[in-house]
Amino acid sequence: MADNGISRRRLLGTAGATGLALGAAGGAAGYAAAPSETPEQTPSLASLGADTVMFHGKHQPGITTPLQSRGHLVAFDLTAGAGRKEAAALLRRWSATAERLMAGKAPAGEDTDVARDAGPSSLSVTFGFGHSFFGRTGLEKQRPSALDPLPDFSSDHLDKARSDGDLWVQIGANDPLVAFHALRAIQKEAGEAARVRWQMNGFNRSPGATARPMTTRNLMGQIDGSNNPKPSDDDFEQRIFVPASGEPQWMAGGSYVVVRRIRMLLDDWEKLGLKEQEAVIGRHKSDGSPLTGGTETTEPKLEKAGADGEYVIALNAHARITRPDQNGGSAMLRRPYSYHDGFDKDGEPDAGLLFVCWQADPLRGFVPVQRKLDRGDALSKFIRHEASGLFAVPGGAVKGEYVGQRLLEG
Amino acid sequence: MADNGISRRRLLGTAGATGLALGAAGGAAGYAAAPSETPEQTPSLASLGADTVMFHGKHQPGITTPLQSRGHLVAFDLTAGAGRKEAAALLRRWSATAERLMAGKAPAGEDTDVARDAGPSSLSVTFGFGHSFFGRTGLEKQRPSALDPLPDFSSDHLDKARSDGDLWVQIGANDPLVAFHALRAIQKEAGEAARVRWQMNGFNRSPGATARPMTTRNLMGQIDGSNNPKPSDDDFEQRIFVPASGEPQWMAGGSYVVVRRIRMLLDDWEKLGLKEQEAVIGRHKSDGSPLTGGTETTEPKLEKAGADGEYVIALNAHARITRPDQNGGSAMLRRPYSYHDGFDKDGEPDAGLLFVCWQADPLRGFVPVQRKLDRGDALSKFIRHEASGLFAVPGGAVKGEYVGQRLLEG
Repeated sequence: MADNGISRRRLLGTAGATGLALGAAGGAAGYAAAPSETPEQTPSLASLGADTVMFHGKHQPGITTPLQSRGHLVAFDLTAGAGRKEAAALLRRWSATAERLMAGKAPAGEDTDVARDAGPSSLSVTFGFGHSFFGRTGLEKQRPSALDPLPDFSSDHLDKARSDGDLWVQIGANDPLVAFHALRAIQKEAGEAARVRWQMNGFNRSPGATARPMTTRNLMGQIDGSNNPKPSDDDFEQRIFVPASGEPQWMAGGSYVVVRRIRMLLDDWEKLGLKEQEAVIGRHKSDGSPLTGGTETTEPKLEKAGADGEYVIALNAHARITRPDQNGGSAMLRRPYSYHDGFDKDGEPDAGLLFVCWQADPLRGFVPVQRKLDRGDALSKFIRHEASGLFAVPGGAVKGEYVGQRLLEG
Repeated sequence: MADNGISRRRLLGTAGATGLALGAAGGAAGYAAAPSETPEQTPSLASLGADTVMFHGKHQPGITTPLQSRGHLVAFDLTAGAGRKEAAALLRRWSATAERLMAGKAPAGEDTDVARDAGPSSLSVTFGFGHSFFGRTGLEKQRPSALDPLPDFSSDHLDKARSDGDLWVQIGANDPLVAFHALRAIQKEAGEAARVRWQMNGFNRSPGATARPMTTRNLMGQIDGSNNPKPSDDDFEQRIFVPASGEPQWMAGGSYVVVRRIRMLLDDWEKLGLKEQEAVIGRHKSDGSPLTGGTETTEPKLEKAGADGEYVIALNAHARITRPDQNGGSAMLRRPYSYHDGFDKDGEPDAGLLFVCWQADPLRGFVPVQRKLDRGDALSKFIRHEASGLFAVPGGAVKGEYVGQRLLEG
């Protein structure tokens, strides 16, 4: 343990004088910098503060970046006087700030100092455009049809005030103060051009809290993400990202994100016994393996019947309905945060999942899966979709470029 | 870094089969287990999940335990039918659950599995009694005079619904899912005996995010806690804990905690320039050193005047008013969490400090300091006390005993 103290100190340097600049020279363990790493890989503990995610790249950070322990989602609306020009200036400012903060530097203007002494702690900042953005900026012709409003689902209980928005920003970091610092810096840079529409806080496991490297648990106690596509999959790029030849052209290398605030009705869920919970999901709670056997990564045997002649994995089990081969091969990359906003007046936790999923086309990713879930998922009586957003997240900026420049100056 | 990965894996074991029991066999780096460690020492990163705080001891955990990155504060009120007997049974259940979870074991009953796979991650659970507890349980004669209501302060804007309470529980852990798991387990164990009155979530730096070992920053960007008494101080025990000969006897080894939800008016604060902020505090923002020079731990030279003949540290500077020798030698151990509950309708963050401070006697700790702050602290226009609680936190349980047993069965 003494060795660790030393190596940590060596990696982070002596913080007092050099302040925020420390992380910049540290490791470059971000996914974008090392494409051979899988998104499941957790950061090295010894360099938690110094770990850096690259801002520039083919794709924006925060999509295949390993899940951070703290996240903020925030949507902005352009103000009445702001149009395309102001939006372009805003994205330029935001990109510059994101690049600096992700490199462990202070923002260009006056700093709140909240992240001072800390390294960038795998900070990532991701920007997206909502359906309403295009009308407000006179860019309707550039609006992708993929941004057409999601269909209504019968189980939706959506709060419009916490849904949609002209602009969307996702912030993740392995330190909560670093994440808050970035959130405030982004808000400050919005200036007179945009106002916060809604904002949500989330969390995941801390690096080092578990030896399980691949997947996290959600607040229902389930292993979450077993089914996620992997960057090593042959069709990963084509499922998750818009191709270079894609339409509209400014979305090349981009992705569409669906964001849902999914409240979990934990008091009801926890009244179920273990076997009942496992029947709802179709997987063992202990290790995420299908009820038909194997390990977390084993394919469920959907046709297998038990001694009673019934399917082992029930027809309405969550694992059956979300299986890609049950949905025309659709797939999306789920990258959620848990949330907990205290207890309501009945003593029930206002808690659940900030569901964030990425796909090249929502009509082949989220929509068909959610349609099936909406019809027959045994899990649906234990969850409630309370907010929803769909955003076009353009490709990553190359050096000298800002995110969205190909749209705003195209 | 490879070495670290290996040692982490070794420390945590292979998680799949043995589940929650892992941390129990891990390191015992909790403060209670190693009294020579100072509370400023951060956990070893390599064993973050396995780090264990001892439940049993002279004092309860969560007082001199190193600050964790995630915290929950929750107050309960006894239900109408519950009296002394039900309260005793509740504290017995809560103590058993706290002991199991802090050792990295699952609770005795059905588990939510939210912490499964993870080690205890320095989990601590601390229990206290509020003023109203004693009337409801017929124990008025055992009520310490130290629990008499705090005086009103002119700057208070207290929400009664988020203040006080019969029972108070503080949960801290270096993993947010471990902390949430404990919160739900404690809530579940309350059963029919008690209901949640209020609940708040907080956070601090993640271990490893910074090389600064001693103090954290708050959401104003200031280093917080420079002035804190240290367990190595000669008078630490007598300032923070009720002595063995203290009154009432059931509080021997205990401490009184003052909890304040202090909202920071960050938009106003951030409009100040660096020099103005430093004048308000009386310390340099960069490293916490007094404006009269030195390092974070240097005593401020309160009599020093500048070239203009004015005190360098202004008469209303926060650092002057909170100096122990300006308050009759009073001292308290501050152990706060930051909080951020989203943005309000004006786009201002609902954020600030969950101020938690410990002392042997509130009339010699929190009260005189807050009285002085209330009259003349330059910081007061940038903060707002929105909730308040004062609780008697009994000494730690010895093996076979539960927390509060000396009160409830005395």
